[in-house]
Amino acid sequence: MELSADTSERPRRRGREERTRAGAASHAVRPQPRRPFPPTPGVSEDELEAIHLASLRVLEEIGIDVLHQEAKALLKAEGADVDPSSDRVRFDRGLVLSKIGLAPQSFTLHARNPQRSVVLGGDHLAFCSVASAPNVSDRDGGRRPGNKRDYQNLIRLGQTLDAVHLWGGYPVEPADIHASVRHLEALFDMLTLSDKAIHAYSLGKERNVDAIEMVRIARGIDHETLEREPSLFTIINSNSPLRLDIPMLEGIIQMARRNQAVVLTPFTLAGAMAPVTIAGAVAQQNAEALAGLVVAQSVRPGSPFGYGGFTSNVDMKSGAPAFGTPEQMKAALVGGQLARRYGLPYRSSNTNAANTIDVQAAYESVFSLWGAVMGGVNLLMHGAGWMEGGLQASFEKMVIDADLLDMISAFLTPLAVGEDELAIEAMREVGPGGHFFGCAHTQARYRTAFFAPMISDWRNHETWREAGSPTGYDAANRLYKARLAAYEEPPMDPAIREELTAFVARRKAEGGAPTDF
Amino acid sequence: MELSADTSERPRRRGREERTRAGAASHAVRPQPRRPFPPTPGVSEDELEAIHLASLRVLEEIGIDVLHQEAKALLKAEGADVDPSSDRVRFDRGLVLSKIGLAPQSFTLHARNPQRSVVLGGDHLAFCSVASAPNVSDRDGGRRPGNKRDYQNLIRLGQTLDAVHLWGGYPVEPADIHASVRHLEALFDMLTLSDKAIHAYSLGKERNVDAIEMVRIARGIDHETLEREPSLFTIINSNSPLRLDIPMLEGIIQMARRNQAVVLTPFTLAGAMAPVTIAGAVAQQNAEALAGLVVAQSVRPGSPFGYGGFTSNVDMKSGAPAFGTPEQMKAALVGGQLARRYGLPYRSSNTNAANTIDVQAAYESVFSLWGAVMGGVNLLMHGAGWMEGGLQASFEKMVIDADLLDMISAFLTPLAVGEDELAIEAMREVGPGGHFFGCAHTQARYRTAFFAPMISDWRNHETWREAGSPTGYDAANRLYKARLAAYEEPPMDPAIREELTAFVARRKAEGGAPTDF
Repeated sequence: MELSADTSERPRRRGREERTRAGAASHAVRPQPRRPFPPTPGVSEDELEAIHLASLRVLEEIGIDVLHQEAKALLKAEGADVDPSSDRVRFDRGLVLSKIGLAPQSFTLHARNPQRSVVLGGDHLAFCSVASAPNVSDRDGGRRPGNKRDYQNLIRLGQTLDAVHLWGGYPVEPADIHASVRHLEALFDMLTLSDKAIHAYSLGKERNVDAIEMVRIARGIDHETLEREPSLFTIINSNSPLRLDIPMLEGIIQMARRNQAVVLTPFTLAGAMAPVTIAGAVAQQNAEALAGLVVAQSVRPGSPFGYGGFTSNVDMKSGAPAFGTPEQMKAALVGGQLARRYGLPYRSSNTNAANTIDVQAAYESVFSLWGAVMGGVNLLMHGAGWMEGGLQASFEKMVIDADLLDMISAFLTPLAVGEDELAIEAMREVGPGGHFFGCAHTQARYRTAFFAPMISDWRNHETWREAGSPTGYDAANRLYKARLAAYEEPPMDPAIREELTAFVARRKAEGGAPTDF
Repeated sequence: MELSADTSERPRRRGREERTRAGAASHAVRPQPRRPFPPTPGVSEDELEAIHLASLRVLEEIGIDVLHQEAKALLKAEGADVDPSSDRVRFDRGLVLSKIGLAPQSFTLHARNPQRSVVLGGDHLAFCSVASAPNVSDRDGGRRPGNKRDYQNLIRLGQTLDAVHLWGGYPVEPADIHASVRHLEALFDMLTLSDKAIHAYSLGKERNVDAIEMVRIARGIDHETLEREPSLFTIINSNSPLRLDIPMLEGIIQMARRNQAVVLTPFTLAGAMAPVTIAGAVAQQNAEALAGLVVAQSVRPGSPFGYGGFTSNVDMKSGAPAFGTPEQMKAALVGGQLARRYGLPYRSSNTNAANTIDVQAAYESVFSLWGAVMGGVNLLMHGAGWMEGGLQASFEKMVIDADLLDMISAFLTPLAVGEDELAIEAMREVGPGGHFFGCAHTQARYRTAFFAPMISDWRNHETWREAGSPTGYDAANRLYKARLAAYEEPPMDPAIREELTAFVARRKAEGGAPTDF
């Protein structure tokens, strides 16, 4: 297996890791939530098998267009049926099945602050912020194209929110940075303004290679450690239906080669890029995900790989994408079943199609979270701040979603059911017709007994009206500004920062990455 | 077992039922949703047993205050330990266990339109409207005290919404009707403006007896049929902690005696009327529910009985009730486990504590629905229109909630996973890089492929902004008025209407019911 040649080994600086750890220790990081109950199935075992078999037939009979020469050669060497006159590759089911079970069921994605490292897989949940929105909004500034200033502020805001465990990409596209060097500046910001684990876009080999090197520098580790410890992930969106393009395949190859995480997520909107039936859309999703798995596990068997489900539907009246729909919820349950069938971490999303912070934004989000969480999501993309079908990152929505995610974490925290919690003595003390406010059992526990939300306003109607009848949108607007004002940059070893700065300067001087994608 | 003496047998009018059926046949009533997956457990089997045993200890050692002489005598005859010097009744666990398994696991609650009858229990879900709010609101008129006009309009609106399967009480209290005759006028409206199944408040014997007679007249059936076919239900709220008062006990006695449904729902807000720990609050809820079960099954073994869970928490900063919280969600899961342990239909609720139609109203509602639905709810109270912790019924929220409930019904509709739905031929036809909009598989299905919401606005940002940037609140305001304008009174046999009118007139002439409750 060939390793990238353009990264050179450097001796680890003494004390670097220890200082990073000490700096980070001042933040108390809450443990990741874990799902305490079995996931909910969306289909029966027989139906799951039918979907699995249908996707194997799709791979065998129809095949996938693979647009990348190295990937085609790799697949041919693995025994795939590569059509020499086109890009079509057909996958024998034996080949597909031979790649299942190689990738880890669960792995740790390492952050530069070790306390922020996350487990992806098993019963663990990890929540990402919104990613890849072209526009950004807050109430004060309205909706505007993505730019570096808002990008940095969304990173800062997300850094203050414990519910945001890691970054799933740029929360908004910093479109005012030239595309050739955008990844360098944006990743520098992400790695310095935040100490959480990160994602790298697969938009050409150079960007993947740069991202891998930047995260290695930021973590202060050598190449061997980086390959032992996956430290960034990439989302690979197949070009549904049934196509993997050059940058996506390049991303799989570069990332898998260095044992970094690939999360393959077909964007299968039923009725548009996938069949109008959810079963068909999920079968296609599954075929595309398995094709990606074959590529990744052919590049490096055992490299970390996530199964992504993003099946929702379009509005058949307008063709507009719809999110947080019953169809998306059902697809999310089935996606989880398929991921577990293949022993892979499962990626789903917190989505909505609302244009503003209203009831629709909230109910579509919670419905999508319902499907994802009960479906057994491990990696939740777009957890905080996603609006308008992904076209808008919202400062207010980011704090609202952080509250929703914190509520879900509290929901997933198992009830304590010991003698003390069953509280028979408290009931005896209070007795019929009494009140529990004053009793010792309550007094000893009330401060931390219940989840305390950031947004919900539980004042009575009169008090609420006297306060000016604020909505949740108002509360979120105030809250995000307060969080931003209180933001503190997480500590970073000055030597690491210097090395990272020098790397970015060098790569910018070299012209960055090609922009012909 | 004594039957009420003040209702006389009348011969069934010929053709009445047939005409009612014919009239109703013009409305296509959708089937009730059914839960296609197993409910989610909130605690382990061992922990469930610990809660069960704790509540048996509470009933044995602490007991319940029973304020009604007839109920005390009944319980004494059943072997309960009735303290002669107080209202305290202690229940031997043998007595409690002997009453479990007598009530039906599932039963039909009959509506005057047979197509509107609902199954309560098993995997069926039935959704009620908001009930018992003292205030009513819409955006145009603001928040105002409950009154007959708004009461009637909420009934009319709910009648037009298929997601509202039955009435869980008065959607708003028609407080401008004198309390002595309110139940007569309000039930007359409910039975004539709507053809859905109904609830009767337990606020004194006369009101229960009148309600039973009115529903019998409205259904056009004799007394024997009424006793064979439960046709109304009552919510019995124990006076938590650990007390059953006179009207509640009278309600159990009157309803169970006639084989009408009793749904016992302790109102156990953790930290106020119940222990601050959710396990303790649920143990108390369970003790109170089991006490009610013993009373009801002592009155009439086998009479329909529902297990209600309403455990949420208070805001410990203010003492205000909180709803849609993670604690409520967990309690809803455990409540469902307990109900199933006892083989009883399970009642839960759609709740929120928001003061206005904002993100909070939506996310708290969907979180409470998440807990209820995954907990295995059979009877969902306050399904549509509840705001502000139950202090406000909202016209806009009623249509928003109806949309949420319809989405849940769609979510619960099993996916079709046949050859046609797996759509391999459609994928073959479209091929890599193609589009599914135009293919035959899509064209044959697109009109009904996906759930079409009433409220969600999926227009793109530009179109939405040109339309004036409407929120979900705006959409709901328009929608509820359109639905009300399109309302049609469901048909009722003129002879039945005449009989119902005469009954109300007679009972009003007699002075209605006592108001010293």
